[in-house]
Amino acid sequence: MIRHLSVETRGKGLYEITGPVQALVRESEVEEGLCTAMIQHTSASLTIQENADPSARRDLEAWMERHVPEGDPHFTHTSEGPDDMPSHIRAALTATTLSVPVVDGRLALGTWQGIYLWEHRRRGSRRSVVVHLGS
Amino acid sequence: MIRHLSVETRGKGLYEITGPVQALVRESEVEEGLCTAMIQHTSASLTIQENADPSARRDLEAWMERHVPEGDPHFTHTSEGPDDMPSHIRAALTATTLSVPVVDGRLALGTWQGIYLWEHRRRGSRRSVVVHLGS
Amino acid sequence: MIRHLSVETRGKGLYEITGPVQALVRESEVEEGLCTAMIQHTSASLTIQENADPSARRDLEAWMERHVPEGDPHFTHTSEGPDDMPSHIRAALTATTLSVPVVDGRLALGTWQGIYLWEHRRRGSRRSVVVHLGS
Repeated sequence: MIRHLSVETRGKGLYEITGPVQALVRESEVEEGLCTAMIQHTSASLTIQENADPSARRDLEAWMERHVPEGDPHFTHTSEGPDDMPSHIRAALTATTLSVPVVDGRLALGTWQGIYLWEHRRRGSRRSVVVHLGS
Repeated sequence: MIRHLSVETRGKGLYEITGPVQALVRESEVEEGLCTAMIQHTSASLTIQENADPSARRDLEAWMERHVPEGDPHFTHTSEGPDDMPSHIRAALTATTLSVPVVDGRLALGTWQGIYLWEHRRRGSRRSVVVHLGS
Repeated sequence: MIRHLSVETRGKGLYEITGPVQALVRESEVEEGLCTAMIQHTSASLTIQENADPSARRDLEAWMERHVPEGDPHFTHTSEGPDDMPSHIRAALTATTLSVPVVDGRLALGTWQGIYLWEHRRRGSRRSVVVHLGS
């Protein structure tokens, strides 16, 4: 089964999508299998991160701001704004596709794990994630 | 087929798990298919790396120590110790899930490739990896 | 279905392989499924990146040259040349495996996405990518 997930972002940061992905697992009726998500953009990405303390996500975002900053004078790909080229680099350093096993009809995530869409553009936008469920 | 692999770590560094994963491929009797591994933690990760010279793994670890150091004064997520937030960033920069094709009943790794669990916490612990085998 | 893709590189940089991978999807006759690619090397990697403006790929390469430079005096794994250890780190920071859903017999990539082999060695060489197609 393949479904498209549409996620509205409102600027840089991590947006949890574990719930909507788990809903697709349920809809698929896959009991034991594999759930793969791919984000259809190169200026946003996916990551599995700690779902408890929001300070961990803020520190992740802040680390990226310091290490892949906007306005780096070395960038030549600047026509789409100062936050565009850093967003491609951040996407390359994180994940575009993730595969999570399904056990007993549920994503086999660890207790502290959540699936996140990581928006790298300032403005945010409507993002599309393709989800495949197989056995 | 889905199995859980338990890996005991004794501090930061790369621990090879190619052998145990290959044993699960054999147990599954999959001859041609796909083997997916996911680590159920956000302070350890997975990577496919060079399996010959241990100096490559030491240099990898040392690069992370220099670029995602403990005790970065910018971190606010510090309640679980100075090595906790760096471990989440290191996990985001490497891989939480990996998928390796299976050919003739074996992982189709290159000659110099091994699958490694990368422990990012000082103390180490018992880590859990979920392995899915499908055709 | 599993196939090997052979890609000739001529030095550092991103080489698009979307076309050859899509050709394998067609050959497999998979209409709805999952396409997984794994590169069998630890000094080259895979990434899904912007396929329109080549300046984005040049800036990606340049960012890596600045952040994971050749000749870092901390490296001890130097017997295979000054570009070898940086190439392992760059591979760890990007992707060795990627899984892309297949919809209507085509890779479900976004409009601006292409699949790239990222060569991290100066000289380049013949690189091997294993591609698995399943439903």
